[in-house]
Amino acid sequence: MIQMEKNKIKSGAYLYPMPVSLIGANVKGKANFMTIAWVSIVEQKPPMISISAHQSHYTNQGINENQTFSVNLPSVEMVEATDYCGMNSGKKIDKSELFEVFYGELKTAPMIKEAPVNMECKVIRTIDIEKGHHIFIGDVVNAYAEGKYLTNGIPDVKKFHPMIYSMGDKHYWKFGERIGQAWSIGRNFKKI
Amino acid sequence: MIQMEKNKIKSGAYLYPMPVSLIGANVKGKANFMTIAWVSIVEQKPPMISISAHQSHYTNQGINENQTFSVNLPSVEMVEATDYCGMNSGKKIDKSELFEVFYGELKTAPMIKEAPVNMECKVIRTIDIEKGHHIFIGDVVNAYAEGKYLTNGIPDVKKFHPMIYSMGDKHYWKFGERIGQAWSIGRNFKKI
Repeated sequence: MIQMEKNKIKSGAYLYPMPVSLIGANVKGKANFMTIAWVSIVEQKPPMISISAHQSHYTNQGINENQTFSVNLPSVEMVEATDYCGMNSGKKIDKSELFEVFYGELKTAPMIKEAPVNMECKVIRTIDIEKGHHIFIGDVVNAYAEGKYLTNGIPDVKKFHPMIYSMGDKHYWKFGERIGQAWSIGRNFKKI
Repeated sequence: MIQMEKNKIKSGAYLYPMPVSLIGANVKGKANFMTIAWVSIVEQKPPMISISAHQSHYTNQGINENQTFSVNLPSVEMVEATDYCGMNSGKKIDKSELFEVFYGELKTAPMIKEAPVNMECKVIRTIDIEKGHHIFIGDVVNAYAEGKYLTNGIPDVKKFHPMIYSMGDKHYWKFGERIGQAWSIGRNFKKI
């Protein structure tokens, strides 16, 4: 029997650290971006991604209007711009000129050139959990990256430097050391 | 105009690195655990979390049966056990003795004592995206941690050492340096 004392703790959102994304949408015909961490891959074939964003976000208006959005993974070098987009609502400031914006096949999902990885997504499902947030599930129609961030055609975290956000201490973090390979290091496991 | 060449890349799930969790469920009355990274907070008040897991997982049977699951955040020290749970299906091996298991209020959501952070969750919505995966949205009914992992009552990533998984290179990673504070570092942003 392992000796440890488990305490019941406040069951808040700060328990789960997550990577940071800039979500893009056209609102009233202009590119807008919001900073969120509640983004998750949900399907592999075809690739799908979910985002959860409070319905009060200005960006949500654009997603609802066009049924498209983009997911842009900023690098650690973009931490100030990323936080700026989280601190300032599109209701108050015009974010359409903050970045070099490009569009893909979907035409209404603005993507950020400076962000190393971009995905343009088409909404296939909107889930209202009736507590304030909307979950948008999107088909990842296309993804983009510069060649310098790729290894064997796939974005390489050692090259594109994504950020992780922990709500507990409200800080952005870098990736650290590589610990081990999946589907492999588990072979060493021995139950003590 | 920034000079850069965006390449269209394969739009796969490997684009988005995510923290690793061990998801627990009772299947046929026995604790079982699966390793997944597709976990996301989706609501703050009340706290809710979503997981996306292929319906072929043995653990899914238990979630469907009891409408409960647990999310356990393993530390980097548990990398071998975590990967082992991902490499071996509960259909073939009995995982009920791998860890010290405890139960909370929900009675059917087995949690791992050795994992620094645990959440017991009640399913409030199951979404079938009809491509193989099921998304379970759960109310985080209670959360648990040992005192040594907490700062001001909140789990501290510097103390509990969560792991991040990047599907691109199939590796587990540590957290690295802290870059900056959210809702603050954005004040330094200046559009060039």
